[in-house]
Amino acid sequence: MALIVHKYGGTSMGSPERIRNVAKRVAKWARAGHQMVVVPSAMSGETNRLLGLAGELAPAKSTAEYQRELDMLAATGEQASSALLAIALQAEGLDAISYTGWQVPVRTDSSYTKARIESIDDQRVRADLAGGKVVVITGFQGIDEDGHITTLGRGGSDTSAVAIAAAMKADECLIYTDVDGVYTTDPRVVPAARRLHTVSFEEMLEMASLGSKVLQIRSVEFAGKYKVPMRVLSSFTPWDIDLAEEAQSGTLITFEEDEKMEKAVVSGIAFNRGEAKISVLGVPDTPGIAYRILGPVAEANIEVDVIIQNISKDGKADFSFTVNHSDYNRALDLLRTKVVPELGAQEVVGDPHICKVSIVGIGMRSHVGVASTMFRVLSQENINIQMISTSEIKTSVVIDEKYLELAVRALHTAFDLDKPAE
Amino acid sequence: MALIVHKYGGTSMGSPERIRNVAKRVAKWARAGHQMVVVPSAMSGETNRLLGLAGELAPAKSTAEYQRELDMLAATGEQASSALLAIALQAEGLDAISYTGWQVPVRTDSSYTKARIESIDDQRVRADLAGGKVVVITGFQGIDEDGHITTLGRGGSDTSAVAIAAAMKADECLIYTDVDGVYTTDPRVVPAARRLHTVSFEEMLEMASLGSKVLQIRSVEFAGKYKVPMRVLSSFTPWDIDLAEEAQSGTLITFEEDEKMEKAVVSGIAFNRGEAKISVLGVPDTPGIAYRILGPVAEANIEVDVIIQNISKDGKADFSFTVNHSDYNRALDLLRTKVVPELGAQEVVGDPHICKVSIVGIGMRSHVGVASTMFRVLSQENINIQMISTSEIKTSVVIDEKYLELAVRALHTAFDLDKPAE
Repeated sequence: MALIVHKYGGTSMGSPERIRNVAKRVAKWARAGHQMVVVPSAMSGETNRLLGLAGELAPAKSTAEYQRELDMLAATGEQASSALLAIALQAEGLDAISYTGWQVPVRTDSSYTKARIESIDDQRVRADLAGGKVVVITGFQGIDEDGHITTLGRGGSDTSAVAIAAAMKADECLIYTDVDGVYTTDPRVVPAARRLHTVSFEEMLEMASLGSKVLQIRSVEFAGKYKVPMRVLSSFTPWDIDLAEEAQSGTLITFEEDEKMEKAVVSGIAFNRGEAKISVLGVPDTPGIAYRILGPVAEANIEVDVIIQNISKDGKADFSFTVNHSDYNRALDLLRTKVVPELGAQEVVGDPHICKVSIVGIGMRSHVGVASTMFRVLSQENINIQMISTSEIKTSVVIDEKYLELAVRALHTAFDLDKPAE
Repeated sequence: MALIVHKYGGTSMGSPERIRNVAKRVAKWARAGHQMVVVPSAMSGETNRLLGLAGELAPAKSTAEYQRELDMLAATGEQASSALLAIALQAEGLDAISYTGWQVPVRTDSSYTKARIESIDDQRVRADLAGGKVVVITGFQGIDEDGHITTLGRGGSDTSAVAIAAAMKADECLIYTDVDGVYTTDPRVVPAARRLHTVSFEEMLEMASLGSKVLQIRSVEFAGKYKVPMRVLSSFTPWDIDLAEEAQSGTLITFEEDEKMEKAVVSGIAFNRGEAKISVLGVPDTPGIAYRILGPVAEANIEVDVIIQNISKDGKADFSFTVNHSDYNRALDLLRTKVVPELGAQEVVGDPHICKVSIVGIGMRSHVGVASTMFRVLSQENINIQMISTSEIKTSVVIDEKYLELAVRALHTAFDLDKPAE
């Protein structure tokens, strides 16, 4: 008998029929003797519907008072879906009860719309589990020390589930979603992409931050910090498949580097189409260039990803960085009207037609030459590398977006990811 | 400066546009210097939508576990509308905050789906009002002593508003709704019906229990018990009408019997089409007949309204009562299969085509002959009275439903209700 946390996304909770399937699946686990905690998201579309109503009443504001009300509003989506799931579980003959974040309680700071979990009191939930109940807990939300409702931000239900699993020392946290695991790369780009049976949480962190939308990055950080075994698996398999088979499906995110994991140097190829490149050319090469260019950008709340400063020639340097597409025009304007005149730079040029491709692998730590293999492969395909950025377990390059598919496929093959896993 | 409670029904909160109008109206009152507490219902249709989802997942059950989840689910409707109203008030430039029932807290017993308010702690709300905030409080819901969410049953937002007004000793509780007050009778039946400027809470109680849907009966009981001045008025007047005019509009429900009120012997004609009559004929006239007939009916959760037992003839009595239309067939079956054989009664007959017409007036206490005037008027119209039931301030008759409009119009005229109020 194990203590298991299940988390179901909004699509899995999208209709009474789907909620009934979730209940049947949970019932299967409960009947196998496991203690079950279930964390559902709001029914798909519900959070957008609620925030849309708020948007009709008032433009988005950053005041704490306004954001407090947004949390009050958005938290109702998960409260409703949790009660519905408890009802469906009761209809399956189980003893089930649902709790909101404040009832558990899940204590957070007061950063409305993006609160962080501070502590979880599991006494009440543990007593219910001991009494044979299945416990449903609203994802996405908590309560601050003054008794206000807070939410954890988009995708926060993943984080809730992992945090609850951590607080209760659950044996495993299963994240049921609309994909059946983590892949070596996007199967829509490389049909030969295959599902990873295991991935380290550090690799998962890099993949999540590089645009893989499987898991919310904060939930992965949480899982790593508290060493919660976490599995991503499909909620669209029939609910009545064999439990042992289901328990081994999907991708396990582990915090242990076992021998098997060491074998693969590169675990996956991640990519991101959502960035644009900006270069400030001919900057007088004096100390503090980076700060004088990026300071105003940061002040305007524009997030910067890859940053490159080249070698100075004739006392002039070129400085490049990438931003999200949505911030591209604003960043360009800001640099042209404010930074360039003050800095005495030559000009600002931009390119929204770029993409970022990354190889990720915990094995890169102990294997030399992985990055150079990447550069060789791209060179053989005549793909020009515009920027390079590296970390301990990742190498990213910025290239022309038209080469994205070609680059990803070539790298997938070169790093032996097309072959079936051993 | 006064402390004022506003309550807005689901229709008044039915769309962002209408919520904005509510906010503008509340802002007018706040800017006039009043301390404002606002209690909104869920947006119209929302509670039905939520309970419909529950119904798709499981048949209605009477277990406490199931009903607890229904409350958890239904309470989200008011939480969402309260947050939306707070946002709309902020957009009007007011400092506004919303609270759920558990945040206030509004403490109730644990009778899920029909909980009763036990106490309201107004400390938090009072501090906010003193700080210049408009406070929005979810109607319809509270928290029991174990921290479970409870709801007060359909129409419970009226009761919440009055209970909050009572706890805070508010100067007046204004119930904004889709009618513009309490009428001498339904204007759709009697075009000459006119709005009452004041009505005693006892008369209002009778009218509410007699099928007038203007106010939830429990809210009127509450207002009477705690002597809360309560006004029913329209939320469809333009929000920017003069405040003094608005403050005198609608119908004031008072607990003081002033001289003016004494003038009208009958304040209104109420009626109810929703009942059916059942008669058990030829019952052996032994002690305990009423109990032996109505005991099984009550056990089957069938509510009984008017009850008549006639004089015994030849050791046999006839026993008649009315039930809701929705319980009619069930009651008839129960009596035929169980009660009649056990009791040795002759037969059971029923008539679903009846209606109940009542004259209501606090002046009836001190005026004799009011009931006989009613009987005379009906007799002159050749309307046969099937049952009669009286209380201190009300006389009801059961008649064939085809005479409903005729009876109501004749009584409205006979008791001088067609004339303009003095």
